[in-house]
Amino acid sequence: MNRIDALRERVGIAYGGDYNPEQWPEEVQEEDLRLMKEAGVSLVSVGIFSWASVEPRPGEYDFGWLDRVMDRLAGGGVAACLATMTASPPPWLTTRHPEMLTVRADGSAISPGGRQHYCPSSPVYREHAVRLAERVATRYAGHPALALWHVNNEYGNVIPCHCDVSAAAFRRWLADRYGSVEELNDAWSTRFWAQGYSSFEEVLPPRSPAPFANPAHALDYARFTSDELLACYLAEKELLRRVTPDVPVTTNFPPSLRPVDQWEWAPHLDVVGYDAYPDPLDADAAPKVAFSYDVMRSLRGGQPWLLMEQAPGAVNWRPRNAAKPRGAMRLWSWQAVAHGADAVMFFQWRQSRGGAEKFHSAMVPHGGPSTRLFGEASALGRELGAVRDLAGAESPRADVAMVLDWPSWWALEGPAHPSTDVRFLDAAWSCHRPLYDAGVACDVVRADADLSAYRLVVVPNLYLTSDEAARALTRYVEEGGTLVMSFFSGIVDPYDRVHLGGYPAPFRAMLGLTVEEFHPLAEDASVGLTDGSGTVWSEEVRLEGAEAVAHFTTGPLAGEPAVTRHRFGRGEAWYLATRPDPRTMRALFDRVRDSAGVTPVLPGLPEGVQVRIREKDGSRWYVVLNHGAEAADVPLPAPMRDELTGAAPAGSLRLEPRGVAVLRSS
Amino acid sequence: MNRIDALRERVGIAYGGDYNPEQWPEEVQEEDLRLMKEAGVSLVSVGIFSWASVEPRPGEYDFGWLDRVMDRLAGGGVAACLATMTASPPPWLTTRHPEMLTVRADGSAISPGGRQHYCPSSPVYREHAVRLAERVATRYAGHPALALWHVNNEYGNVIPCHCDVSAAAFRRWLADRYGSVEELNDAWSTRFWAQGYSSFEEVLPPRSPAPFANPAHALDYARFTSDELLACYLAEKELLRRVTPDVPVTTNFPPSLRPVDQWEWAPHLDVVGYDAYPDPLDADAAPKVAFSYDVMRSLRGGQPWLLMEQAPGAVNWRPRNAAKPRGAMRLWSWQAVAHGADAVMFFQWRQSRGGAEKFHSAMVPHGGPSTRLFGEASALGRELGAVRDLAGAESPRADVAMVLDWPSWWALEGPAHPSTDVRFLDAAWSCHRPLYDAGVACDVVRADADLSAYRLVVVPNLYLTSDEAARALTRYVEEGGTLVMSFFSGIVDPYDRVHLGGYPAPFRAMLGLTVEEFHPLAEDASVGLTDGSGTVWSEEVRLEGAEAVAHFTTGPLAGEPAVTRHRFGRGEAWYLATRPDPRTMRALFDRVRDSAGVTPVLPGLPEGVQVRIREKDGSRWYVVLNHGAEAADVPLPAPMRDELTGAAPAGSLRLEPRGVAVLRSS
Amino acid sequence: MNRIDALRERVGIAYGGDYNPEQWPEEVQEEDLRLMKEAGVSLVSVGIFSWASVEPRPGEYDFGWLDRVMDRLAGGGVAACLATMTASPPPWLTTRHPEMLTVRADGSAISPGGRQHYCPSSPVYREHAVRLAERVATRYAGHPALALWHVNNEYGNVIPCHCDVSAAAFRRWLADRYGSVEELNDAWSTRFWAQGYSSFEEVLPPRSPAPFANPAHALDYARFTSDELLACYLAEKELLRRVTPDVPVTTNFPPSLRPVDQWEWAPHLDVVGYDAYPDPLDADAAPKVAFSYDVMRSLRGGQPWLLMEQAPGAVNWRPRNAAKPRGAMRLWSWQAVAHGADAVMFFQWRQSRGGAEKFHSAMVPHGGPSTRLFGEASALGRELGAVRDLAGAESPRADVAMVLDWPSWWALEGPAHPSTDVRFLDAAWSCHRPLYDAGVACDVVRADADLSAYRLVVVPNLYLTSDEAARALTRYVEEGGTLVMSFFSGIVDPYDRVHLGGYPAPFRAMLGLTVEEFHPLAEDASVGLTDGSGTVWSEEVRLEGAEAVAHFTTGPLAGEPAVTRHRFGRGEAWYLATRPDPRTMRALFDRVRDSAGVTPVLPGLPEGVQVRIREKDGSRWYVVLNHGAEAADVPLPAPMRDELTGAAPAGSLRLEPRGVAVLRSS
Repeated sequence: MNRIDALRERVGIAYGGDYNPEQWPEEVQEEDLRLMKEAGVSLVSVGIFSWASVEPRPGEYDFGWLDRVMDRLAGGGVAACLATMTASPPPWLTTRHPEMLTVRADGSAISPGGRQHYCPSSPVYREHAVRLAERVATRYAGHPALALWHVNNEYGNVIPCHCDVSAAAFRRWLADRYGSVEELNDAWSTRFWAQGYSSFEEVLPPRSPAPFANPAHALDYARFTSDELLACYLAEKELLRRVTPDVPVTTNFPPSLRPVDQWEWAPHLDVVGYDAYPDPLDADAAPKVAFSYDVMRSLRGGQPWLLMEQAPGAVNWRPRNAAKPRGAMRLWSWQAVAHGADAVMFFQWRQSRGGAEKFHSAMVPHGGPSTRLFGEASALGRELGAVRDLAGAESPRADVAMVLDWPSWWALEGPAHPSTDVRFLDAAWSCHRPLYDAGVACDVVRADADLSAYRLVVVPNLYLTSDEAARALTRYVEEGGTLVMSFFSGIVDPYDRVHLGGYPAPFRAMLGLTVEEFHPLAEDASVGLTDGSGTVWSEEVRLEGAEAVAHFTTGPLAGEPAVTRHRFGRGEAWYLATRPDPRTMRALFDRVRDSAGVTPVLPGLPEGVQVRIREKDGSRWYVVLNHGAEAADVPLPAPMRDELTGAAPAGSLRLEPRGVAVLRSS
Repeated sequence: MNRIDALRERVGIAYGGDYNPEQWPEEVQEEDLRLMKEAGVSLVSVGIFSWASVEPRPGEYDFGWLDRVMDRLAGGGVAACLATMTASPPPWLTTRHPEMLTVRADGSAISPGGRQHYCPSSPVYREHAVRLAERVATRYAGHPALALWHVNNEYGNVIPCHCDVSAAAFRRWLADRYGSVEELNDAWSTRFWAQGYSSFEEVLPPRSPAPFANPAHALDYARFTSDELLACYLAEKELLRRVTPDVPVTTNFPPSLRPVDQWEWAPHLDVVGYDAYPDPLDADAAPKVAFSYDVMRSLRGGQPWLLMEQAPGAVNWRPRNAAKPRGAMRLWSWQAVAHGADAVMFFQWRQSRGGAEKFHSAMVPHGGPSTRLFGEASALGRELGAVRDLAGAESPRADVAMVLDWPSWWALEGPAHPSTDVRFLDAAWSCHRPLYDAGVACDVVRADADLSAYRLVVVPNLYLTSDEAARALTRYVEEGGTLVMSFFSGIVDPYDRVHLGGYPAPFRAMLGLTVEEFHPLAEDASVGLTDGSGTVWSEEVRLEGAEAVAHFTTGPLAGEPAVTRHRFGRGEAWYLATRPDPRTMRALFDRVRDSAGVTPVLPGLPEGVQVRIREKDGSRWYVVLNHGAEAADVPLPAPMRDELTGAAPAGSLRLEPRGVAVLRSS
Repeated sequence: MNRIDALRERVGIAYGGDYNPEQWPEEVQEEDLRLMKEAGVSLVSVGIFSWASVEPRPGEYDFGWLDRVMDRLAGGGVAACLATMTASPPPWLTTRHPEMLTVRADGSAISPGGRQHYCPSSPVYREHAVRLAERVATRYAGHPALALWHVNNEYGNVIPCHCDVSAAAFRRWLADRYGSVEELNDAWSTRFWAQGYSSFEEVLPPRSPAPFANPAHALDYARFTSDELLACYLAEKELLRRVTPDVPVTTNFPPSLRPVDQWEWAPHLDVVGYDAYPDPLDADAAPKVAFSYDVMRSLRGGQPWLLMEQAPGAVNWRPRNAAKPRGAMRLWSWQAVAHGADAVMFFQWRQSRGGAEKFHSAMVPHGGPSTRLFGEASALGRELGAVRDLAGAESPRADVAMVLDWPSWWALEGPAHPSTDVRFLDAAWSCHRPLYDAGVACDVVRADADLSAYRLVVVPNLYLTSDEAARALTRYVEEGGTLVMSFFSGIVDPYDRVHLGGYPAPFRAMLGLTVEEFHPLAEDASVGLTDGSGTVWSEEVRLEGAEAVAHFTTGPLAGEPAVTRHRFGRGEAWYLATRPDPRTMRALFDRVRDSAGVTPVLPGLPEGVQVRIREKDGSRWYVVLNHGAEAADVPLPAPMRDELTGAAPAGSLRLEPRGVAVLRSS
């Protein structure tokens, strides 16, 4: 923890962005430092994609420019989150070793000319990457600007590699995992479709089988890919730890959350980093990103995390990339802080003049410092500078926990399922939203976690359920907890083999029901419910002790249970045999919360206002955010001080649309 | 015929499914046999994908487990439809011979890990397959369980192979077909786009030419692919015939009908087998599958055929896979029997615990025998057991015949046509549906068949027309027949070369018209007709003796003929210059039927009720199916006995929704 | 110019089509010549795809059949536009040299079996092509039928090649362009994503990088591809010029306009050729093709050009290919003449019996000369024959010019932009349409042209702006011109590097504004304007001297300027910060025209009537076209003679729907 404390001491709530001065004439750096000061920048990420700039030819290094950048940063009082620079191999390397390129499932290689086109299992890549990281670490160990190591970039934000090198590594990984090919055959159910292996040597990546891959094979390949990337990370991290034992190390998880098993990774990060890119054209952008932030906050048990990247305005990689509406940059930045972030960082400091991301917004736009955007970025920097104390404040445990399990996610979206419309993030968002809208905080937990401290546990589509998870969740209810589980949970074991004995076998007793058959809905169709409508899915439920609290009213299951409740042990378990529409979901969750005794962070919150709490050394901060289109009056339980304005609102606080307040009570 | 009679004697209307006990611990087989008895199972398909299980390493065989399965079946009185197991080559074989993998048109190989990934022209594959089939045949020749051979599985239900081995085989096939490269150049019209070959050695598969392939080239590749698959079948069949001359041999045609020329294949099957997978989410599932069943019944002139696979509930390979609504499994099974099936078989007996098809429903679901589904499967088995006499009953010749020609189908859907919306199955369904809805039976015939026994012949989109077909159809009308032909028929010869002299040249005299130009409609657009509307297509018709019975009323052809009738010789020929909407099509076909004297199977059938007849030894069975949502009263021409209930309804029969009756009159 | 004058003298307004007699038995040629005479055919394109027919084996030539074709044409008084036949390499060549096949970005080769599957950088292809062209030129030099050379076919109407041969050629092209790899790195901004090259040897085509290619890399590849194709053209052209110095040389630009930089190509063509395929199912087909014709007319400064291909009726390469409605073939043919065409040619003379384009309509359809289509083609030929004098008449300079720049077009549609909905043709059409509808003629000009002669200059999405272009446009306004510029113009330099200093930096002074941020709209969304609505795009404009003439009324920019006007120097510059809907665009352009003093070709034109002028030797022709669905009365400023009817309408002219008049005033 000391490493991170030192960082916090130095940068407070870190503010800044990716800093790529090598894209500019050196004289621009003078202006950069001046503007950083003006904008309150305390931390910048340096060198993310600088491999070709520091090692322009094999083994030939040019650190001079970077030395001067680091010196200037140190001189200007800006800390450096220094990259190991290994995310984008330079042309000289891929020219000499085309076998290190990522190969897609269809056998075509990702061509150089973009980024992150390396095979994570490639020994050539790994050797060159670690060699570079060592050079960088050695050179900047002890440099006064160095405050944090940034390993690689967004591991997993690429197409998984299916090359022959990966195939060989996958075989070793399988041999480690299963010991014998008989075990592998059993785990993968290879008796089906004559897939029995006589030797590990016969196993290939799930490239493009027809009509589709063995799902267990695909699932293990996702695990393998996460592990191979983790091995890349660890190789660099160990090197860094050895050279600079006191400098904390992190990497930035990619926005989509999905590629790597973050429960496995988080213990190896000194602090969790995350890149968030909510889409301004998506009306649900804020609630969706709130879920991501809850994940980040939970990965290390409520410890602060770093928002390593976001866009000041538009991104450039969607088909249509709108700028953020006025005030959204500030509001959404504070939203990250509300959810536990100790850093508000942007990609990037100065907008590129050329290259693939020149239309990605930046703190200093193409128009320069006289732009509205730079003005807003500076104002935000000043605000964050005013709450230095908040840095290090942890998020208190919430009353509600939501289960997230990466192998289950991967398996859920595997081939040949009842419906391609059942995707994990949709399920998680649909359960998270009614809590978010009600002003209720939510932690995210492992499937086999000790849940005894929570009043309510939400389990969206836990398709893959280990025995440990089944036991943990059952015990939780038995001992008095309230649990909500959505359909298609408890279906398979960790090898994607069905839990026999009636769906969902591991939870039948707890839920008091069994499911006879699945009736997924046609595309974009809905089914009537006693109150409201269901989407995506329906299924035939046979009650075995549970009571129906809502029924299907249309379709082939009209009259059958759609939502059930079961008293089990000292607790109760709710089950959703469909995905209710958002309004119905909200009413249902209100009812469940009522039953579980879960209340909002603050009582009486107006619609659209979000509040989250952080705590440190006896202080408590309420970050209050008005996401609504109207001004709102927020009732306050006690007098507090608004750290941004210095005001001390009593009774209630008025917030304009997109308004923010940071209230402190001691 | 003796071979098949013996099978019928043994199993009656065969009932059962694919039986894959190797996916389970051996002790499960005891329960299997007990449940099969409970469910009335008489026949199971064994070993479809067991290659890797019986030959786990090259040339090393393990038949012990299968011996015990076969013995148990024999002991339990269940007959075995034993597979040659050649549909899915095991990993050891593809690892040693990757050159035997199917290669897609884009040059990428289908990766092992699924099934049916073999190149049918591969000598390696063929040798190994026949070697395996011989081993299996030799071992189980004379085994008391063995009742029927199941060669491979769903030939053609894969992407056609475009590899270099296929290329060489294609060249040999072409040399056989054309003799000289000059003949080939002429047949393929290679003077266009400078495609003239100077030698067969220059010919490649139609891989991915730009902007598109020579259609004659593509058409011959479809013929070649069907022939290569047939050669695979015949090699196995000949072996089986040699070793077990008394055991009938079949294979199961894939659901889509399209891949192989079934007229060419059917003479080589002792009994036709078919896999049917109507989609419960498709409101037209039952009428569509009725067309497939009519094809199967017609392939061997009204002989009974085997429904080798269907799903008890949901499948798993569509994007969204709904379970069948209650009662549909029973209703649709009887529908197959009504259309001449002597088997009602499912994929599969016991639902897989793992692998790619674990969410495909089965007779014994994951929930075990206490499920509703197993109960319904058992009830159906008992019903089928009650009508053993029906086995072997043939379907009487219908009054109506529909022309189906595989090369025409393939050519119709070739590259660079007036409209990609003109697809054969849509055309066939649109013509079959008004007959189905009216309770009229329909046979399916070759394009060059002797049609003199039919009152009405329907010709949907017979794009490719040989001289023989043109003569047969013309003679049919001339001699007094009534014929309905839809647009874009009679366009090309068997080499996809236009019949010159005004469309549709071979039928101008018969139809009394010529077509000036095609005006296909925009996507999803329709065009007004005198009564109703047209879809997909319109065209400018110039009458040459025919009379217009409907006109276009909108669009560039407003006022021009849309439907015509022509008295020709002693008969009459109708022509559809568009595809009328279903309601208009029904009215039109009612009128045509009236003219041709074609009446329903039973008079006065209520909407939604389907009846089909089977006959044997002086007995006649009426299988009566209520597909409608309401109960229906079916008027009966004479007293009959309901074989399922034992009742003897007089005057009329009441059928609940999804109700079935099997009435026998002697 | 003499070369072309001689051609005109011989063929008048050339009429005819692609003539491929090698697809037919030789005796058909007798009928061909007879029918050509009947149809008034004066010019036919011969041998476009005849490589395999004249060189059936390597180095073995068969010109006998072609000699007889040419002789017959000469005998029949039909001139030959003779192809060099190099567009589709024969099977023997690709079999021997598969390395000459086009390779797609994904690494797969275009398979032989179509056409134009050659890599333009392939030395093998080039040598064989020039060798063939030389043979053809030598043989037919001086042949009386030879009137025009047709090099290759539709250069660029293929997928750009990404093979290794192309890669090497691209490196040479880059070395020529940039001299040193440092310059390349600077131009391509390779500091981003670690793309710095240490040597030209490391550069590859932009095959399929992830997540996307460097846009400057992609842009240079488009330039390279255009240049390589031009090199192919020039190699053949130089050979032809050497052998037949007096015969004019052309090639036909492909319909899409986009593939090659026609400003670079046009000086090398003795006359511009173009293939136009308006879609009869597209209600905007006529105005869209009018823009293409304006481009063609402008490429060589108002000189007549040749419509080398169009379809008499339907084409065959769209998903749905409708025939032209009655009268459209005539109307659209005259539309080309109105816009300056001296040829009305079809693909093709006689409809193919087989092969990939057999459903492409032709002058002699499958139904032969008794068809309606041949009758209409003959009537059109007679009409064109009646206006021989018109051949060679130039199009007077219009009052309005629209800027078109190919590199800007390619760059605009490059990777990772604010919105994929911003496409050049849509932008050009949206600006061209209100002029077209108002009866106003429009020239097309280079971005750096001298514009002083124009009253109004329209600049749709000039994303890439060179300093020269910026200066030319600015000077134009300064000196009194009126200019309309649409959003996302002036953004980058010729290396796709942003012009810094506030968008659009090169035009800020001229426009009197800067753009803070881009707010592209969601798919198919619109935004309210003071009057009407905007589509595709919105952006935040800060006025710096300009006045707002319309505002956004909805969305995040409500109240901000949407359309502005700025008096600058002696002129004025309008700016569109969105793409107004067509009705609003029309009103806006009417207002701008009013301000600029731009009037229609003829005053008082009824809705739907188009008029264009051609002039020669003191004569002036008004080609009047009624595109509307109703008859129209066109007021005439003076008495004129209708060259088609011989009538001399006074005061006004009545035109039926799809009616055409060619009025001459001397």
